Amino acid sequence: MENSSLDRKIMQRSKEFFQSISGEAPSIFNKGWWMGKVMDWSMKNEPFKVQLFRFVDVLPYLNTSESLARHIKEYFGAEGQEVPKVMQWGAKGAGIGGKLTGKLMNMVIRSNIEGMAKQFIIGENIKSALKTIKKIRKDGFTFTVDILGEATVSEKEAAKYLEMYLELLAALQQNCTKWTSIGEGELDWGYAPLVNISVKPSALFSQIDPMDFESSVAGIIKRMEVVYRKALEMNASMRIDMEHYRFKDITLEVYKRMRACEEFRDHSNLGIAMQSYLRDTDTDVKDLLQWARDNKLPISIRLVKGAYWDYETVVAKQNGWEIPVYTNKAESDAAFERHTRLILENNDICYFACGSHNIRSISAAMEMAQELNVPQDRYEFQVLYGMAEPVRKGLLNVAGRVRLYAPYGDLLPGMAYLVRRLLENTANESFLRQSFVEETEVERLMENPLKTLERAFLQGGTSLNKELPEDRFTNQPGADFTKAEIRKSFTDALAEVRQNLGKTYPLHIGGKDIVTTDSISSVNPAAPDEIIGEVCQASINEIDLAVAAARNAFSGWKALGPSDRARYLSKAADIARKKIYTLSAWQVLEVGKQWGQAHADVAEAIDFLEYYAREMIRLGSPRRMGRAPGEINHLTYQPKGIAAVIAPWNFPLAISCGMSAAAIVAGNPVLYKPAGPSSVIGHTLLEIFQEAGLPPGVFNYVPGRGSVMGDYLVEHPDVSAIAFTGSMEVGHHIIGNAATVQSGQPQIKRVVAEMGGKNAIIIDDDADLDEAIRQVIYSAFAFQGQKCSACSRVIVVSPIYEKFIDRLVQAASSLAIGPAEDPSNYMGPVIDENAQKTILGYIELAKQEGRVLLCREVPSGGYYVPLTIVEGITPEHIVAQEEIFGPVLAVMKVTDIDQALEWANSTRFGLTGSIFSRSPNHLDKARITFNVGNLYLNRGCTGALVERHPFGGFKMSGIGSKAGGPDYLLQFMDPKLVSENTIRRGFAPIEETDDWI
Amino acid sequence: MENSSLDRKIMQRSKEFFQSISGEAPSIFNKGWWMGKVMDWSMKNEPFKVQLFRFVDVLPYLNTSESLARHIKEYFGAEGQEVPKVMQWGAKGAGIGGKLTGKLMNMVIRSNIEGMAKQFIIGENIKSALKTIKKIRKDGFTFTVDILGEATVSEKEAAKYLEMYLELLAALQQNCTKWTSIGEGELDWGYAPLVNISVKPSALFSQIDPMDFESSVAGIIKRMEVVYRKALEMNASMRIDMEHYRFKDITLEVYKRMRACEEFRDHSNLGIAMQSYLRDTDTDVKDLLQWARDNKLPISIRLVKGAYWDYETVVAKQNGWEIPVYTNKAESDAAFERHTRLILENNDICYFACGSHNIRSISAAMEMAQELNVPQDRYEFQVLYGMAEPVRKGLLNVAGRVRLYAPYGDLLPGMAYLVRRLLENTANESFLRQSFVEETEVERLMENPLKTLERAFLQGGTSLNKELPEDRFTNQPGADFTKAEIRKSFTDALAEVRQNLGKTYPLHIGGKDIVTTDSISSVNPAAPDEIIGEVCQASINEIDLAVAAARNAFSGWKALGPSDRARYLSKAADIARKKIYTLSAWQVLEVGKQWGQAHADVAEAIDFLEYYAREMIRLGSPRRMGRAPGEINHLTYQPKGIAAVIAPWNFPLAISCGMSAAAIVAGNPVLYKPAGPSSVIGHTLLEIFQEAGLPPGVFNYVPGRGSVMGDYLVEHPDVSAIAFTGSMEVGHHIIGNAATVQSGQPQIKRVVAEMGGKNAIIIDDDADLDEAIRQVIYSAFAFQGQKCSACSRVIVVSPIYEKFIDRLVQAASSLAIGPAEDPSNYMGPVIDENAQKTILGYIELAKQEGRVLLCREVPSGGYYVPLTIVEGITPEHIVAQEEIFGPVLAVMKVTDIDQALEWANSTRFGLTGSIFSRSPNHLDKARITFNVGNLYLNRGCTGALVERHPFGGFKMSGIGSKAGGPDYLLQFMDPKLVSENTIRRGFAPIEETDDWI
Repeated sequence: MENSSLDRKIMQRSKEFFQSISGEAPSIFNKGWWMGKVMDWSMKNEPFKVQLFRFVDVLPYLNTSESLARHIKEYFGAEGQEVPKVMQWGAKGAGIGGKLTGKLMNMVIRSNIEGMAKQFIIGENIKSALKTIKKIRKDGFTFTVDILGEATVSEKEAAKYLEMYLELLAALQQNCTKWTSIGEGELDWGYAPLVNISVKPSALFSQIDPMDFESSVAGIIKRMEVVYRKALEMNASMRIDMEHYRFKDITLEVYKRMRACEEFRDHSNLGIAMQSYLRDTDTDVKDLLQWARDNKLPISIRLVKGAYWDYETVVAKQNGWEIPVYTNKAESDAAFERHTRLILENNDICYFACGSHNIRSISAAMEMAQELNVPQDRYEFQVLYGMAEPVRKGLLNVAGRVRLYAPYGDLLPGMAYLVRRLLENTANESFLRQSFVEETEVERLMENPLKTLERAFLQGGTSLNKELPEDRFTNQPGADFTKAEIRKSFTDALAEVRQNLGKTYPLHIGGKDIVTTDSISSVNPAAPDEIIGEVCQASINEIDLAVAAARNAFSGWKALGPSDRARYLSKAADIARKKIYTLSAWQVLEVGKQWGQAHADVAEAIDFLEYYAREMIRLGSPRRMGRAPGEINHLTYQPKGIAAVIAPWNFPLAISCGMSAAAIVAGNPVLYKPAGPSSVIGHTLLEIFQEAGLPPGVFNYVPGRGSVMGDYLVEHPDVSAIAFTGSMEVGHHIIGNAATVQSGQPQIKRVVAEMGGKNAIIIDDDADLDEAIRQVIYSAFAFQGQKCSACSRVIVVSPIYEKFIDRLVQAASSLAIGPAEDPSNYMGPVIDENAQKTILGYIELAKQEGRVLLCREVPSGGYYVPLTIVEGITPEHIVAQEEIFGPVLAVMKVTDIDQALEWANSTRFGLTGSIFSRSPNHLDKARITFNVGNLYLNRGCTGALVERHPFGGFKMSGIGSKAGGPDYLLQFMDPKLVSENTIRRGFAPIEETDDWI
Repeated sequence: MENSSLDRKIMQRSKEFFQSISGEAPSIFNKGWWMGKVMDWSMKNEPFKVQLFRFVDVLPYLNTSESLARHIKEYFGAEGQEVPKVMQWGAKGAGIGGKLTGKLMNMVIRSNIEGMAKQFIIGENIKSALKTIKKIRKDGFTFTVDILGEATVSEKEAAKYLEMYLELLAALQQNCTKWTSIGEGELDWGYAPLVNISVKPSALFSQIDPMDFESSVAGIIKRMEVVYRKALEMNASMRIDMEHYRFKDITLEVYKRMRACEEFRDHSNLGIAMQSYLRDTDTDVKDLLQWARDNKLPISIRLVKGAYWDYETVVAKQNGWEIPVYTNKAESDAAFERHTRLILENNDICYFACGSHNIRSISAAMEMAQELNVPQDRYEFQVLYGMAEPVRKGLLNVAGRVRLYAPYGDLLPGMAYLVRRLLENTANESFLRQSFVEETEVERLMENPLKTLERAFLQGGTSLNKELPEDRFTNQPGADFTKAEIRKSFTDALAEVRQNLGKTYPLHIGGKDIVTTDSISSVNPAAPDEIIGEVCQASINEIDLAVAAARNAFSGWKALGPSDRARYLSKAADIARKKIYTLSAWQVLEVGKQWGQAHADVAEAIDFLEYYAREMIRLGSPRRMGRAPGEINHLTYQPKGIAAVIAPWNFPLAISCGMSAAAIVAGNPVLYKPAGPSSVIGHTLLEIFQEAGLPPGVFNYVPGRGSVMGDYLVEHPDVSAIAFTGSMEVGHHIIGNAATVQSGQPQIKRVVAEMGGKNAIIIDDDADLDEAIRQVIYSAFAFQGQKCSACSRVIVVSPIYEKFIDRLVQAASSLAIGPAEDPSNYMGPVIDENAQKTILGYIELAKQEGRVLLCREVPSGGYYVPLTIVEGITPEHIVAQEEIFGPVLAVMKVTDIDQALEWANSTRFGLTGSIFSRSPNHLDKARITFNVGNLYLNRGCTGALVERHPFGGFKMSGIGSKAGGPDYLLQFMDPKLVSENTIRRGFAPIEETDDWI
């Protein structure tokens, strides 16, 4: 292609374009101005860039001069940090000219940064926006206006957003009558409505979740159609913006439904944006064009490259998903040209808006349009307001039809928008940076991206992901519910599991099933009449049998060695991976866990298997101690003996599997006692291990009543290790019992106990509430708050209290409550009647101790309890001290961060905790002072992943090392040192690792 | 020097010499012969060489064809191992020609290796030796005869050795009358007695110990003078051999005293060997020559290079001592020439025997003698029998006066001698290998060693030790008692400490001394009337005070951070290092620990300080978990809180310091309760920490009666960690008490408990008894067996039983018993009257349960108990099960290794254990099956060093990770994971360690 005549023409046009604007630079790079200087510094100094962008992000929250000064100092005042003079003056406080100057400088910094934002935003309110629009139009540009806003976390906010659009449209309707059209005729360019708006789906519905595709689509349309109706009424155009990849398919579906519905199908004023950087877009564009053709519905596409590249890449990496975007910029550029051609070829059915600041991309679109004889009224060009001014000017000269994407809104969301624009301008590969700052050779700048790619491939720098060594642990990817086939797998699995309800589950001891007379029924907590299974119950006789079986299995299992034992775990992981949806479905029905979280639980079980397998191989290879010649000292680890695993029901597969897998791979046969309410899921663990071929007696399934066999199991002299996860009270009982040496007991028992939590999230006055609200909601109410890591206290610093609480309560009010089976429900029933009673008791108490802000109505029938938020709580209150294990959130108001930390630490527990703050100093303070095993900075306090977030607390939250961490297996083993004297007759072979001469 | 005319002459002569023998090769390298083939293989294949030499070593113990076959298979039969065909045939058993051939081949291998030994030994008894001597003399050589023997581990063996010399001399006396002299006159060469013997000092006294210089010298002379007297009686010459460096100064002293004593001073028939490879030898030769001149006593020196290079180097490295030998062969060669010149220059007072096979060295001696006009009757040449035959032949031609060093004796010690000779022949740098195998260019072979050295220096390959990175942990060197100044430091320190006895020691809490009314006296167990100190005793009130002080100190100490806390430990180590002799002396007097072991205890304390300091720095640096972009997860560790350290008296400084240092450096303030009988030593630990400047309250010294404050301390809710070392009974009590959660207790207590042992050493039928006896004796009786690691059972496989027991009992009978103050005593008193009573009770029991083989008489006055060895013990006996903690050794006889391991494992304990075996398979079996925390192969079971031998057991021997090992500090800390979400507004700084695209 690179030698085609088209390409030559594109190159030619690009160069001419570029030369026509030479000497000009976008204002953001203008070094004569403050912003230009700071941008220049950012591009030379990555750490400063990070600090600057973060500071920009937090700036709107800094409402007092004290707070402003403090943040400037924290962000830019570190010793040895390279920052521009202009920042230093502020940061040093008492710099040249004393304190006053410092204060003044801080105000200058603020006003300059606010100025930067204004560069990209047409106004903070409708009035000023209209003024700018007027100016834009005067300059010969059309516009599309977009309302900036905070993230929409509640239906109230979504409704408000809708309201704002209606207001905007009304104002435009009023104003536009005074405008003259651009070009000839009534309409702009002769065919385009004078008013054009852009809307973001995520702003119009607070509960979008790819897991629940249908409700998400419906929720968006419910409000978007109101906006569109209004737009049509005034003959305005509307374009649906494309946001994160997560919402892509939902957005496409919203577009199709809106476009095709009876009410709107005769109007072609609705467009959609598509992102060329997505690997899906080739297919998506083709499909959409085909759909338009099939339905005879003209459409309109704004093609952009995409603005969330960093985010999409990081999120995919964090989740173990395929990266949805191209990882080499030239690939995106090439895709943009490919998509441009495809759309232009279909110009009869699709209007094309070319959204790019890249001169090569623009020129390509122009040349292709020419080559394909696309009529002028079938395409236009769009650039962002405030960006690449020389380009837009050049474009206007050459193409005529240029629309500015023009956001307006508050400074607060404006700053987030600013960060995105700054990133775009300053990225190493940015066309603008390359063109106007780096002054890359024009030949290179304008070359066919396919050629750029070819060169990159030849140099070995391809877009392929870095290869990981095969044996490195990686987490099992989370379920990517954007994929329809994954959603279908869930519904299929639920149907399949429902076919298998009500079976009887025998014990399994020494490789044999054993049916007992005593049994309990495990039920669906959302519909207690539905029996999940009948589970046999062990008496002390069966415990004796199981201990004997384990004893028999011990020496053979121990002798197998670390690698061979690890192989069984890997095999079990493979098996679980294959059944992941079925295993998840069992959890949805037996414990009422929501789809995504059920899947995450199974994924965590797989992680434990894979991680502990690798850990055992690591720990199992003898470590040479010292380097003295003439002796070889090897430190190794050997199994303790028989392990009792006493598991909870809340992470019914993950924790059961983690504790068991650790014990097993370390060489200890296991007696596994699942929790009563999740015994059927416990049986699925047995099935996995059976299928993996574990020798008889290595894993024994012995559900039973704690009152009947609990103490007996713990005190059994032949049980050497006890892994327990559950309540503090039971934990204390086990620890005490296990410490008493029984007659015939061969060794001191090791107890690994994970107990409760009373976890707090601190909201600092500069917290990013968009993030904080969502994360608090999830941490407190996901799986009904039945996680030891769940947030049960939120501690809010007073300046931000009202705003936070208001949004929080609204967000919590927006959640759907009902059976976990239905993915539209955010919250379901609690585990059983006992739990229900206990939690209801705490809710009554909360009403006495504080002021209830929210107590949701819940469905009847299942074991539901109201989602409750109570404020006015202080450390003296019982609801601030005791673990409730339900969806009850205590709100505590404090004056400052120190009190927040003090209150956070004021319980017996020390499991998890979070802080949302954008103050580097406050985050550091939390690192040191916030006394919990798992501390999270700017994220929620649940959802620890194996290896990445080794999990476990101290104080009364537990003893023992963190699950999923590098010290965990040590607890199931005894260290052994073998020292061989290798000198014989004065002669010692010298090893390479010896400390020798 | 290299251009001097002398050097040219030496080169010239060397080359001529070499050419004169060209075409001949020493028989050992003769590839036509079996030995030559095997040697050839060894030199090409280092692993085979190791196996071969080890096999040679064990061969004399292989008395049955089954045993022979098994060892051949184990040594040479491994898959993938490269061994010569001739070995394979044996090793494969049923190889070509079936089993019979295999068996036959094994016999061939044995006879060939025995043949190798015979190459270097003139006979296995006097008769055959005399026959060979006759032949030697017939060939024109004189001789010096030496009796090979096993190591002398008892006075009985020393006496036997003396007897053998007397027999040899008698036989020679009888025979030599029939000999004709070599050369003219009655004497050989006209001046040399016909009979010449060489004696090894270590053979004549079993208790040589550099620590006790005087007794060692006296002990050797006592028997050596008898031999010499007999030699003089028949006008024979005698030469004292020089052995390991450890005995060098003792041997020189023996020589001087023998030479100068009234009885012998008029005779100059006594010579001594000196080793040029020792760095000391320049001084030693000068001093000895000066001494001879001062005393007007003509002397005689046999100069050799030295044959224990590997051993000396390894031992020095293992002990952290300066390497006493030159580490570059050319340095030794140059020293040999230097020493040769020095001796020849003094030929008026010193006769010179040049002992070398190196043609350059020999030629240098000849040329120097010529240059210095040394009379012919003032020097001779010596070579080893069986070595370098072409050289000896050439020498005879050129120099005339050549003496063969001619060992005779049993095959068993003969094999050890063979290994030494094989090493000498096959070392890479060996002159013989270079000359006759590698065929190195003659110019190089014969060049001045100074030139060789110069070249090596220029190439960067110098003799300097490899540099260690500064921050790498290395053990505090053991006391090198060969140094007179170190011995003096000990006597001085004892005198100094004795000046300071009887003081009163207050408690120390929160930086203040606190005197209590209750106190106890700590006494010298060897002389209970001697009060070491009066020690104040804490009541529960003082425990409350100390807990409060620790609580006050906690947050500041924690906040200090790992590196700063570690610095205090390093400082404490420096302080202890400076006071090492004084600290040792306190132990000698307060607990009756022998010098070397007292020093080792202080050294271990220093090691703990240095090691845990480094460990804390290692663990203190946050570890990044996972590599996902957009999050930084750091795993760190934080202190648990207040630690109680409950210490034993047997390692009074080391264990106290180790447990305290670990707790402290991890950030936990300590309440330290020393054991009653070692409370004054405990106070020295306080003094060290005080001098290091530990903040008040971080280390609190609270000695007290366990009955008064023990439970209170353990149960105190504010005590979060308990580090205990002591008996199993107390351990169980503490573990049980600590597990009960007290009201107000903030967290579950962590107990680190090292309890008892009932340690066994297994003696396999192919054990090297020379090593085994010494190590069993030391493991069982050093410090009176009062170590938790001490050997209290020796399990002997029947074929070797009689021989082992006989030598063991004789060795134990040879030990001196008395106060530890006197370094001649191997064993001292036990700690106190209670211990004495308990142990005496067990001795009574032993008499009932088994047959007492030895029950030594002991001094009266102190708390002595008889050293006791009892046989006929089986696992059912109480003395085979309970920890005695005294010098009582149970001997258990078993049929084979499997029973040995079964019996070794038949107690409740699992602390230490050893096996002496030269069967690779049996060693492997032990690695897997011998169920102890510290397993030693071919060494004793005590004396674990920090880092190299992390220490601690399982079963009822302890819980918790090994002291001095990489997991130890974890026990005093809680892990904390801090996960920071670094994404803000979709933008995450990418870290270098991220798993990024």
